[in-house]
Amino acid sequence: MLADPYDAILLDLDGVLYRWPEPIEGAAEAVRALRDASKRIAFVTNNASRTPAQVAERLASVGVDAKPEEIVTSALATATLLAERGVGSAFVVGEEGLLEALGDAGIRVVDASADEVDVVVVGFDRGADYTKLKDASVLVERGVSLVASNADASFPAPGGESWPGAGALLAAIETTTGARGEVVGKPEPPLFERALASAGGGRPLVVGDRLD
Amino acid sequence: MLADPYDAILLDLDGVLYRWPEPIEGAAEAVRALRDASKRIAFVTNNASRTPAQVAERLASVGVDAKPEEIVTSALATATLLAERGVGSAFVVGEEGLLEALGDAGIRVVDASADEVDVVVVGFDRGADYTKLKDASVLVERGVSLVASNADASFPAPGGESWPGAGALLAAIETTTGARGEVVGKPEPPLFERALASAGGGRPLVVGDRLD
Repeated sequence: MLADPYDAILLDLDGVLYRWPEPIEGAAEAVRALRDASKRIAFVTNNASRTPAQVAERLASVGVDAKPEEIVTSALATATLLAERGVGSAFVVGEEGLLEALGDAGIRVVDASADEVDVVVVGFDRGADYTKLKDASVLVERGVSLVASNADASFPAPGGESWPGAGALLAAIETTTGARGEVVGKPEPPLFERALASAGGGRPLVVGDRLD
Repeated sequence: MLADPYDAILLDLDGVLYRWPEPIEGAAEAVRALRDASKRIAFVTNNASRTPAQVAERLASVGVDAKPEEIVTSALATATLLAERGVGSAFVVGEEGLLEALGDAGIRVVDASADEVDVVVVGFDRGADYTKLKDASVLVERGVSLVASNADASFPAPGGESWPGAGALLAAIETTTGARGEVVGKPEPPLFERALASAGGGRPLVVGDRLD
């Protein structure tokens, strides 16, 4: 099989395993074949709003068998990266997946008014409002570093609409402050590095549907 | 005086007539001297959130005598431009000054769910939230044109903080959609053209504190 020379397979979700909410033909069988060939697998997603358990449920609903511990979201990669740097507290523009990943990594999620805020983290957030964008911007102006779980410009919403993605919220903060955020998700290296560490192995194959 | 060769004086506000909330020394006297010399005057501001009456009050509080009809905001210039184009309805990300100017120009401010939306107008809006940015983006994706009263990246808030300006909200919509908004305010021509039309005269002098 194509994957023969590789021991770790990093699988993109959207466009590879499903085109939500439709399965992609042959995808479930391909994952089973990889398992039968004893490949190490990681499921990789820029989406920072869902937890690994929620992503595993979503994959199950399109027939793909995945364990939560095989799923590496940009939220998890962000939390791991920040914990490795000794970050203790974060002001977050983000949803449950990002909040939970940061909490699990031992990072306190704090208000903008907290005495100490080590980092501003931006992800996809349908609860974002002017006050949140303003608080994030003011912290960044004060010198707090800006990290984005991903910079996807848009979020493919049900019905074919494109909604503002993490990258659109990041753009508002970057425009206000003139600062540039550090991006963890695809196509930047940190998410892939984290996925490879999670899967194990030394010769990874990344399966995606587009370069970003 | 410096203004001798000019018959219309277009005066910027922030940085020229005040550095809010402080007056700028000599500004009030300079405006009186221009009036004594029978110059036509327009007070020009990118700020789209205040009505001309509110701007006149603000000027009075720093000692500058201004009539509401001498004040040309980017909101007024936007409304005039759109009315001249025959625009009938607008979905608006904006505050009172923009809503009132559009209404006064005969443009209906509608919800995103309206049967017909001719244009998406973006200004400074402390009430902006994810849903508003999403609705604006979805309309623009459908082909509705995108116009910004101004593209100021940040808004100088009390206490020296910079808050997200109209340009930051515009950046979120532009990032989501890939579209580029048409900007009415400084440094683009439409606001200056509208101010000159309002003041009258043919040899304008623009007094500002920076090129944008």
